Amino acid sequence: MTSRENRCVILNARPVGVPGPEFFDVVSRPIPAVGDGEFLVRNLYLSVDPAMRGWVNDAPNYSPPVPVGDVMRAIAVGEVIESRHPDYMEGDRVCGTFGWQHYAVSDGDNVMRKLGPDEAQPSLALGVLGLNGLTAYFGLLDTCNPQAGETVVVSTAAGAVGSCVGQIAKIKGCRTVGIAGGPDKVAMCLDQFGYDVAIDYQNTTDLGAELSAACPDRVNVYFDNTCGPISDAVFERLALHARITVCGTASLQEWEPIPMGPRVHRQLLVARARMTGFLVHDYKDRIGEAVTQLTAWIDSGDLVSREHVLEGIDQAPGAIQMLYRGENTGKLIIRLD
Amino acid sequence: MTSRENRCVILNARPVGVPGPEFFDVVSRPIPAVGDGEFLVRNLYLSVDPAMRGWVNDAPNYSPPVPVGDVMRAIAVGEVIESRHPDYMEGDRVCGTFGWQHYAVSDGDNVMRKLGPDEAQPSLALGVLGLNGLTAYFGLLDTCNPQAGETVVVSTAAGAVGSCVGQIAKIKGCRTVGIAGGPDKVAMCLDQFGYDVAIDYQNTTDLGAELSAACPDRVNVYFDNTCGPISDAVFERLALHARITVCGTASLQEWEPIPMGPRVHRQLLVARARMTGFLVHDYKDRIGEAVTQLTAWIDSGDLVSREHVLEGIDQAPGAIQMLYRGENTGKLIIRLD
Repeated sequence: MTSRENRCVILNARPVGVPGPEFFDVVSRPIPAVGDGEFLVRNLYLSVDPAMRGWVNDAPNYSPPVPVGDVMRAIAVGEVIESRHPDYMEGDRVCGTFGWQHYAVSDGDNVMRKLGPDEAQPSLALGVLGLNGLTAYFGLLDTCNPQAGETVVVSTAAGAVGSCVGQIAKIKGCRTVGIAGGPDKVAMCLDQFGYDVAIDYQNTTDLGAELSAACPDRVNVYFDNTCGPISDAVFERLALHARITVCGTASLQEWEPIPMGPRVHRQLLVARARMTGFLVHDYKDRIGEAVTQLTAWIDSGDLVSREHVLEGIDQAPGAIQMLYRGENTGKLIIRLD
Repeated sequence: MTSRENRCVILNARPVGVPGPEFFDVVSRPIPAVGDGEFLVRNLYLSVDPAMRGWVNDAPNYSPPVPVGDVMRAIAVGEVIESRHPDYMEGDRVCGTFGWQHYAVSDGDNVMRKLGPDEAQPSLALGVLGLNGLTAYFGLLDTCNPQAGETVVVSTAAGAVGSCVGQIAKIKGCRTVGIAGGPDKVAMCLDQFGYDVAIDYQNTTDLGAELSAACPDRVNVYFDNTCGPISDAVFERLALHARITVCGTASLQEWEPIPMGPRVHRQLLVARARMTGFLVHDYKDRIGEAVTQLTAWIDSGDLVSREHVLEGIDQAPGAIQMLYRGENTGKLIIRLD
C-alpha cells in the first residue's frame, strides 16, 4: 500500500453540451481501502473519449450520467498494486472504467480486460487495442459487413476510431474515403491511414460535389461519427443496400431539444439501406477475438495508430473540449507520473 | 382474340406530390398484338397502392418514373386469354405489373406470380396474398424479427399493409399497438385486426402520452408507413435494440426539397436500434414461402383482410388521392367489368 494521496478529477456541476474545464475540479482524496474481493489499481494512462460528453449530460444515454461530485467516469489502464481478489494479482495490468484519478479500487466489474504479458505499450489498450479499436472492429465488420470493392466512407477519418475503421476497411479490400477537418488531418488520412481519398470538410465549398467525385459508385458503407451536415451529404449518396453505422454525433452541439435535419426515412427506403446505432459495450463477450485480430494487424504493419499524450492529471479538465475542437492529432490520452 | 378496345389510364403530366385525377386521362387504345413468347391478360382487378405516388414523381426512387403519355404502372390480377408463351396457358390467372388498363400483353417479366387453382378470390392477390401481405410478412418478420412478448407499433395500422403487420405480430405472440386516423379505423384495429391498443392520431391532444401509456416497456419493433410526426413520437420511445422497418412515408406530402425533422441518429445510438428501408421487390425469390404461410393463416382465421372496391376504370384517376386522404376502408382495388 502506498501512502500517497489520490488526485482525482471531480465533476462539479451538470453541463449541457461539451463540458469545458470549468465543470471539473482536480482535488486530492484519500486512497480508498481495499476490501475483500477488491484490488487497487494505480493508473498509468487515462483516456479522453467523445463519449464522455454523453456521460456527464443529463440526456437519455446508454448509461446514467456521472453524479455531480463524483470522480469523472473514464477508461484507464493501470497496474494492480494490491489485491484481495482471486483473479487479479499484484503486477497485473488492467484496462477498465477506473475514472480520471491516480488510484482506483475495483471489484473487477469495471475491468474491460487484463493486458497480456506481450503488450509492450499499455497505452494502446486505451486506443487501437481498446475501445477505439474494438469500436472500429465491431462497428465496421459486424454491423456493416463490408465487401471487397465496396466504397466505405468514414467521418472523423483521422480520429482514434475513424483511422482504425479506414484501415480495417482497406484490409478488407474496400475503397476508403475519409472525411476530416483541416489539411493536417487530410494528410494523415492519406499518408498514414491509407485512405484512397481524403476530403477536408473545413476547406471545401461543396462537400457534396467532392463526395460525388470520390464515390462514383455511391456509398456502400458509411461509418458515421459526426451526424450533422457531413452525414447529410453522405446520406444523399447511398448505394443500394447501403449500411450505416451510427457510432457518434460529434458535430451536434446539443441534443435537447433534439436537433432538426433532413429526414433520412426516404433515403433509407429508396436505397433499402440499414442504419444501426452502435455501442461497443454490446460486444464485451467478443473482446478477445478482436484484440487478437487487431494485434495481428498491428504486428503485420497493416494497422497503425497515433497517440496525442497530455502530461499529468491537471490536463484532464480541458481535454474533452480539446477533443471536440479537433485539436488532438491522435488518440488523446493523459499520462500520469 | 377479342374485338374490344383497351380502355386505359394514361399519365398526362408530371405531378409533384400525391397525383390527383387531373394528372390522368382515361382513353381507348387498340389491344396490342401478341408476339412470339408473349401472352394477353384480361385484367379483373386493378390495384391502388401508396407506392404509385413514387412511381409518377420525378424524384429518386427505386424504379424510374412512369413516362408521361404511358399507361399508369399498377399491379393487377387477370386471366390469360391468349398465349404464345410456353409457361402461360389460356385460363391461367396471373398477378403482375399489368398497368391501369383492361388488357395487357406480357412476356412474363412483369408477372409477380401465377395464382393457384384453389385461390377462390383472385382479388386477394392484390392485397393480403399480394404486395401488401408480402410486404407485411417480410418487412416485419425478416427485417424486424419480432419476439413473443415484444411491443410492436404499426402506423397506418388499419391499412392494407398495416392490418397484416398487426395480425402477423399477434400471431407471433407480440403486444400490438396500432396508430390509425379516425374512430372508424381505430374500431377496425380493435374489432377486426386484434390490436391490443389502437390510438387515433387525428383525435388526440398528446400522441406521445398515449404512446407511452400504450407501450409501458417502450417500443421493440416499429413498422413505419408514415414518417412525420407519428414516427417522431415513436422514435422517442424506442426500447434497447429496437428494430424499425421504414416501409412508407405516407405523411410526407413532398420529398423535394427533403423535409426536415428531428434527427434520429442519437435515438438510434442510445437504443442501439436498427432502422431499415424495406422494399418487397427484394424478396421476389421467396414469394412462394410467404403465400403458403399467409394462406394458412387466412384459412385458420388468424389473418383477415378487408377490401374497398371501386367499380370501373373511370374510378382510377382519383384513387391515389383517395388513398392518401385515408378515405378507403380496406385494400383499395378497382373491379373491371
